[in-house]
Order: sequence, then structure tokens, then C-alpha cells
Amino acid sequence: MTCMQKPTGAHALVRRTHEDRVLRALQANGAMSRGEIAQIVGLSRTTLSEITGNLLQRGAIIVVDTDAARRGGSGRPAERLALDPASAQFMGVDFGHRRVHVAIADASHEIMVSGSVRYDDTASWQTRTELALALVDRLSSQAGVRHGALQGIGIGVPGPYPAPVGVAQPRATPGATILRPAPEGVDVAFAERFDAPVIVDNNTRLAALAEAITGADSVADLLYVRLADGVGGGLVIGGQLVTGSTGLAGELGHVTVEPVGRPCRCGKRGCLETVASVPGILATCWEFGLRLNGPEALADAVARQHPVAERVLRGAAAALGRVLGAATMTLNPAKVVIGGEIARLSPVLVEQVAATLAGELFPIAAAGPVVEAARLSDEDGALGALAAVFHNSPLLAKYPGTADVKDRSDGSDPTPERAAHVRS
Amino acid sequence: MTCMQKPTGAHALVRRTHEDRVLRALQANGAMSRGEIAQIVGLSRTTLSEITGNLLQRGAIIVVDTDAARRGGSGRPAERLALDPASAQFMGVDFGHRRVHVAIADASHEIMVSGSVRYDDTASWQTRTELALALVDRLSSQAGVRHGALQGIGIGVPGPYPAPVGVAQPRATPGATILRPAPEGVDVAFAERFDAPVIVDNNTRLAALAEAITGADSVADLLYVRLADGVGGGLVIGGQLVTGSTGLAGELGHVTVEPVGRPCRCGKRGCLETVASVPGILATCWEFGLRLNGPEALADAVARQHPVAERVLRGAAAALGRVLGAATMTLNPAKVVIGGEIARLSPVLVEQVAATLAGELFPIAAAGPVVEAARLSDEDGALGALAAVFHNSPLLAKYPGTADVKDRSDGSDPTPERAAHVRS
Repeated sequence: MTCMQKPTGAHALVRRTHEDRVLRALQANGAMSRGEIAQIVGLSRTTLSEITGNLLQRGAIIVVDTDAARRGGSGRPAERLALDPASAQFMGVDFGHRRVHVAIADASHEIMVSGSVRYDDTASWQTRTELALALVDRLSSQAGVRHGALQGIGIGVPGPYPAPVGVAQPRATPGATILRPAPEGVDVAFAERFDAPVIVDNNTRLAALAEAITGADSVADLLYVRLADGVGGGLVIGGQLVTGSTGLAGELGHVTVEPVGRPCRCGKRGCLETVASVPGILATCWEFGLRLNGPEALADAVARQHPVAERVLRGAAAALGRVLGAATMTLNPAKVVIGGEIARLSPVLVEQVAATLAGELFPIAAAGPVVEAARLSDEDGALGALAAVFHNSPLLAKYPGTADVKDRSDGSDPTPERAAHVRS
Repeated sequence: MTCMQKPTGAHALVRRTHEDRVLRALQANGAMSRGEIAQIVGLSRTTLSEITGNLLQRGAIIVVDTDAARRGGSGRPAERLALDPASAQFMGVDFGHRRVHVAIADASHEIMVSGSVRYDDTASWQTRTELALALVDRLSSQAGVRHGALQGIGIGVPGPYPAPVGVAQPRATPGATILRPAPEGVDVAFAERFDAPVIVDNNTRLAALAEAITGADSVADLLYVRLADGVGGGLVIGGQLVTGSTGLAGELGHVTVEPVGRPCRCGKRGCLETVASVPGILATCWEFGLRLNGPEALADAVARQHPVAERVLRGAAAALGRVLGAATMTLNPAKVVIGGEIARLSPVLVEQVAATLAGELFPIAAAGPVVEAARLSDEDGALGALAAVFHNSPLLAKYPGTADVKDRSDGSDPTPERAAHVRS
């Protein structure tokens, strides 16, 4: 994943850094006069006027009132500026196999609005893109969100995403370059529509980043695996998302765990995916005589602690634990996260992975990684895409704490469900 | 691995960047007057005089002559400055189990002198350190190398090296902090003796870095494994050496390959190390009736293409290939390098690893990584330590091509054997 900004010289870079500091000062302190802001961020009045002029023009901040009522002395009252609560700054879009999720965040990284819309898994990229853009419009108009100041759009797509990862610029931008198209132009569609830079990456990888940087105990080294229709993975190493030399890093699902196992859709046999994906788990249940007709039936069997389902899950988890054990020996992560609905539903699965992994670890590594189920659900994919935008901004990245995915609904709810939310 | 520089402000950082440019200009162009240097590096005469004054004082450059003979006009002849060919800038020290290697490089990263000295594998760290320091003295006095301008010392040590990795400062430096001692103070001994910052890391990991950045085809993503008395590994990802959350990244030797295999010194059974280390290979040869009495006998059997030795090597290579296959699926490196004497001696081994690894790879990854035997031999460990010093200097890292390990002996010999070399 790379982030290409609009062509900027050193001056523009400095200006955007200043802008960011001004936005953060307003976020931390609420409405302030230009003089108060200048003092806090350490800029001259002249420079600050330029910065605030630009932010006002972009719609990122607004004039809320003057300090006339509160000032004692004489002279012209000073305008007080504040973040525009209706101005979106970041957008995250997550295209799953059957649904697209969107989350829109303000300058302080708080979710302003989020929602999702279904499509058929045979839908073309053009259809998916149109549905996603219509969803953004609907969500934004319902919540009164404006897009004039969008700084970046992150887009997650299913499946391996080759490097160099696509970053589209609005075509109107002089010197704009499209490094590599996302699946059938979704990146270009968003870049043109919102006149903002777009980052595209595999959505499992984006989820890994979101898990690494979400919450108070963010970690620099994290191994993420998601059990769903397939088994995907993502790595964060040294605080950076790893894409690998050809964009294929994290393909844990195709490590061989049973040399003479079931055929895998990749062409090999006995890949982890044939054992630990939801279809793989269902197939093993059938082999043991437990005929479940789909993920819902599996969830139900897990909820009832059906002994066959639990045995099959332990077997899948043991295979997963061996693969994660080898990967942990290689990478020495601080945390191993298991994503996907099944991991959330089945404590047995996470427990068995942790046990197998502990057995695999180098005994002198007394403290192995934390092993846990993902905190963000599959429904939160757009948060991963948002995290990518936050994380990849070289300007934002310099400021501690800017990489957090925050939720305006005060933190008591780990998902953005409390924000204005539309599903269709 | 971290590099702590002496406390420096922005001014000092700028000065060191300027110094570096001046040294590189002198390296590229040979002796020049201050005016010529100023023109090439784009500095004012005043700034340049400060920089060259400092470099002259540190012994990094010398006055070679004046331009009196070559200039046509009148006026005072200008001094011509050049790199001091006798002034060491970087030192690499590699402590193996039975031998320490030292390599000393000049400002242009060329090896000035290198050598090694044996010790007993039961020797204390104090003895090893004293032997290494005496070796440096002997090598330097034979080759007329001075240490007044040493910029950094890299030290490789055997075994996992926990993070945060030790960086010792000379005790005399105000504000000096020792993050974590190397094995029994070797880092402090070198830092104090040479008044230079010291970087310490596991020597297998340093070898991985050296393999990644050596030669014209340097890669950003590399997986390295070394087969010796044990099996160690190192990862370079995105151009950075990976240490992991607790300094244990790269421990490929303790991935389980045979769940009911031989006991491993780590306490588990059937680790890769029990199969693919030199003692592991020898043990398997015995099981197949080929009684070899040590690494030399194994080398001899390999050279004679003994069928049992080849079969055992293929088996070990297949196990190694499966572990590297899983690691490659996880990391998607551009290159997989197999180090250790046995990999150099046995084409069968590298060939079988490549074949097994290709079979393990995700079929859509049409182009798997390059698999090759290490270019640098175990004897070149000090080059890894040097590479760490070159690579970790935030100043040097900014300049393309500065991370290369170069050999003054013009590149026709990949090892520094042609440089003044002492063994004892």
C-alpha cells in the first residue's frame, strides 16, 4: 500500500503540517480566536491567517461567533473559529463479497456516519461502485455531512491485491498518475467524484492494520488471520502494514497443513483454507456426520456447544495454531488476532489456537504473543480502510495518537453502530 | 536493532549530513580544493570551511597538496583536500562460537583491513572481547589504520538477541544511555575503547541484512536462514531488519517439522534444527548407516556425491523448503537465501529447497522468490556487522547506494580476502 499525495513542494508540505496542527488544536480546545490558535500552535499571525483562510475555504472549519461578549477591552471583536462538525475529512469504503460498508470521519478521526448496502456476489465492479457512491450520498444527506474538505479515501477490496498498490488521483489534478487500477476502476471513480487521493488495499490487510492501531494497547507487530469463505491474513511489522515484494504477504490460508488433504481452490491440496475456512469447517463436520447447511447452522451448533462441532473446531484451530506458530516463530509478533464471525462465536476456537501456538513456541520465549479474537467485526471493514488513510498520511503519522480509529459514540460501543447508520 | 546517536540537535544533524556529502564528493572526485568541493556539494565557502575544519580535526580527511602547480592565475594557492586513506570510519565485529572476525572500513565503505582470531567455544565474554580488541590493534598497526574518526561499530553476537537491542555510548559522553548490555559488556568495552556508538545484534540477522544490501541487485524483502551448528534466520522487510516484539524474529530453526522427531536442545521435538542443522544432518546420515565423524567428513561425502549423503540432504532440504514455503507465503519476499558452509558446498540442497518451496507456493504467485546460497560466507560475518552500521546511520541511509558493502579489491572477489588479512 502506498499513498501518493497531490504533487507538492516543500512549501505545500509545511502548509499541510501547519493545517493539521491547527485542526488538532481546534479539536482539543474547541472554538478559539486566531490569536489563541496562533499562540497554541506557535505560528505567526500572518502564517496563521493564511492557514485558517485556506481551511475556511475548504470547509474544514467555520466561524462560530466573535469574542465580543467575552472580551473586556476595546477594539474590534475577534472571530472565533471551530471545526465544521458537518465537514467530512476521511472516507473508508470496504467492498466485501456481498456488501459494501462505508464510514465517514471528521478531522478528529471520529466516525460521523456509517452504513452498508448489499449486492449480489456476482455483481460487477461497476454495479458495486455505483451502489457504494449512492450509499455515500444517502448517508451524507441524512446526516448532513459535506465532502468539500475530504483529505483521503481508503478502499478495501477482497482478494490479494498486487503491489504496487493502486493510488488514484482525481483526473483533474495536474500531473496526476494512476499507479495501478483497483478492480475495474473503483479507485478512479471515487477519486474523481470526491477530488481526493484514494488508497486501495486488500481488505483483510486493512483489517490487520485496524486491529493493530485500535484501542489503547496498540501494537507495532501483529499477525492477523481471518476465517471466512476463505482464510486471509495480514501483517503489521514495526508499525507498518506489510505487502511483500509482489503484494502477496499474509496469504496464510494457502500454507499446506495436510499434504494429502482436500483439494483447495488454489490448485494445491490440504491448504489451511481447506480446514479452517467456514466451508472447510462445514465440510469436516459433514465428514463426522454433522450435516450443517451453512454458516448460520454452524453458528447455531457452536452456540449449542455441539460436541462434533466443537471437536471439528478444535481440529481446525490446531491446524491454524501450527501455521500461526510457525509464523510467530518467524515474526515474533506481540499479538495474534483471529478475525471472522466464527472466531467471535467460538471461544473454543481461540482457546485451542492459543494452546497449540504456545506449544509451538520456542520455549525460551517465555512470553508468547497475546492471542485474541478480533475486536472489530467483519461489519467494521470500513474502519480498516479509514485506518489506512489515517495511517498513511505522512503528515498525520507524525503526531502521536493520530492513528486511532475513534468513535464519536463515546467509546462504550466498539462499533460505530450508534452513529447515524443506514442498512439496506 | 536500534541506533542511538550522541544527543544532537537539528544543527548537529545538518552538520553531519553536510559532512557526509563532503566525504562522498571527495570519494567520487579525489583530491579537491575547498572551492571545488563547495561548488559540488552546494555549500557556502563559510559553511564548507567549518565542515572541512571539523573533518580535518577528526582525521577523516587530510591536506594532500596545493593547487599551485596547476593554477594559471595569481593569488594564494589553495590547499587540496582528500579522504585520509589511513583513517577508519566504520568497524564490524562478528563473534562466532569459536572465532571473532573484524573488518574495518573507510569513509567510502571500502574494507581497509580484516581478519579473525580463534578462541575456545567455552571462552568467557571477557576473553573474547580482549582477543577481539587485540586483533583490532594488530590488524590496524599492520595496515597503518587509525581510529580517530570512527563513526560507528557494529557487533554481531551468536544466539537470539533480545530487543531493545543494546547500543552503548562511550561512558564519557554526556547523557549517554546504555539501553541493554550485550553479552557481558562487549558493547561497552568497544564503545569506551574507540569513543564511538556501538550497535549489537544477532549475527545471523546481521548476515541477512548484508545479503539483502550486498551487490547490484539489492532487495527490500529477504528471508535468510543459516544452517550451521544450529539453524538461525533473519528477515529484512521493507528494507528494514526485523527484530520482532521481543527480539526473537527469525527463529526458523525451532519451527516443528516432525511432531515426533528427535529431541531439540530447545526442549521440543522435531524442530527444523534437529533435521537441517549440520549435527542434525550428520545424525540422519548415521541413521542411514553413513557414519561421518564431523562437518569435514560430511563436506567430503557431499563433494563425492555420496548417494546417502545426497538423500539425507534432500530430506533436510525438503523440511527446510516447507518451513521456508510457509514463511514465504506469509512474507512474500523477493529472495530466499540459505547460508552456512553446507549450502555453499551442496548444490543439491539449494536445488531441493527451491523445488519444495515452489511446490508450496500459492499457484497464482507465478514468480516465486529467487532461492540461492548465501553470497557471503560465514567468514564474512563482520561484513554483516558493518552493514548494520552503514544501514542504521540515519544520515547515510538517505543517500542512494551508501548501504553497499564494498570491497577495495575491485569487486572481482566477493570476500575481503584480498585486503590485508591476518588469521591466527
